[in-house]
Amino acid sequence: MTPAPIELHPVGHVRSPYKTRHDAPRQGRFSDTVSEIVIDEKYQPALWQIEGKKNLWVLCWFDRADRTVLRATPPGASAEKGVFAIRSPDRPNPVSLCMVDLLEVNGCVLKVRGLDAIDGTPVIDIKVYSAETDSAKER
Amino acid sequence: MTPAPIELHPVGHVRSPYKTRHDAPRQGRFSDTVSEIVIDEKYQPALWQIEGKKNLWVLCWFDRADRTVLRATPPGASAEKGVFAIRSPDRPNPVSLCMVDLLEVNGCVLKVRGLDAIDGTPVIDIKVYSAETDSAKER
Repeated sequence: MTPAPIELHPVGHVRSPYKTRHDAPRQGRFSDTVSEIVIDEKYQPALWQIEGKKNLWVLCWFDRADRTVLRATPPGASAEKGVFAIRSPDRPNPVSLCMVDLLEVNGCVLKVRGLDAIDGTPVIDIKVYSAETDSAKER
Repeated sequence: MTPAPIELHPVGHVRSPYKTRHDAPRQGRFSDTVSEIVIDEKYQPALWQIEGKKNLWVLCWFDRADRTVLRATPPGASAEKGVFAIRSPDRPNPVSLCMVDLLEVNGCVLKVRGLDAIDGTPVIDIKVYSAETDSAKER
C-alpha cells in the first residue's frame, strides 16, 4: 500500500519571542512565555466561541525539523529511541502537539502561554482540550 | 502572508472493525475496541523501544472529513461553535488526535485500544504521551 501524499494548508502562524530552534524550550508547557497565534482571516469563523476555553491543543508544522530522523536520543537519556516513542521535533511528519493556556482573543489573534513553537511557525490546527478523553487515567 | 502548502506522507494505516464514519464512536477513548496500526516497513526504526509505553497519541489523517466546515454543532450541544473550539472531525486540516492504550507490538503492527479512526485511515504520526506536559493541571 503506497498511500497518496496529503496537502496541509496553514491556517495561521506563530508570533513568538523564540527566534531560533535553539531559543525554544524543550517543553513549552513549563515556560511562562506568552506567544500569539495569528489565524488567517478566512479561517476566523473557526474561532467562534473559543473565548472561555482554558486549554487548547495547538498543532504546528515544524518546518525546520529533519524529516529523515527515525531514531534520536532525548535530552538526559542515555540511549536512542524511535521517534514514535519520544517527543522529538524531528520525525517523518513534524506535526507538533503543544498544550497552551488561552489568555486572550482579539479578532484573529490568540494570546497563549506555553507554546514551544518559534516565530513564524505555520499553525495547522487548534482543538479544545478535553480532560475526559485526553488523559491517561484508567477508564 | 500566504504560506506554502505542506506535504504529509502517511507512515502507516489503521486496521479497524469500524468500516464507516457512522460506525466509529464519537470519542474512541471511551470504547474497548481493539484496532491495529500498521506502520510501513521503511518507518519501523521509528518504533524502536515503543514497547513498554502505556499511552500513545495517534495522529491520523481523516481523509473522509469535510475541509470546508468552519463551524459545527457538537452532539448534545444547542449551538454552533467554531471547529477550533471543539473536536469536530471536519476542519480545514483534518489531523485527528486520539489517545490510545498500547497493548502489544509485533514488528510493524501496534495493537491498541481506544482508537477512533475507521478502517484504512492513514496514520501520520505517533507520539508518546507525557503526563507532565499533556495535562491541564496548574503549573
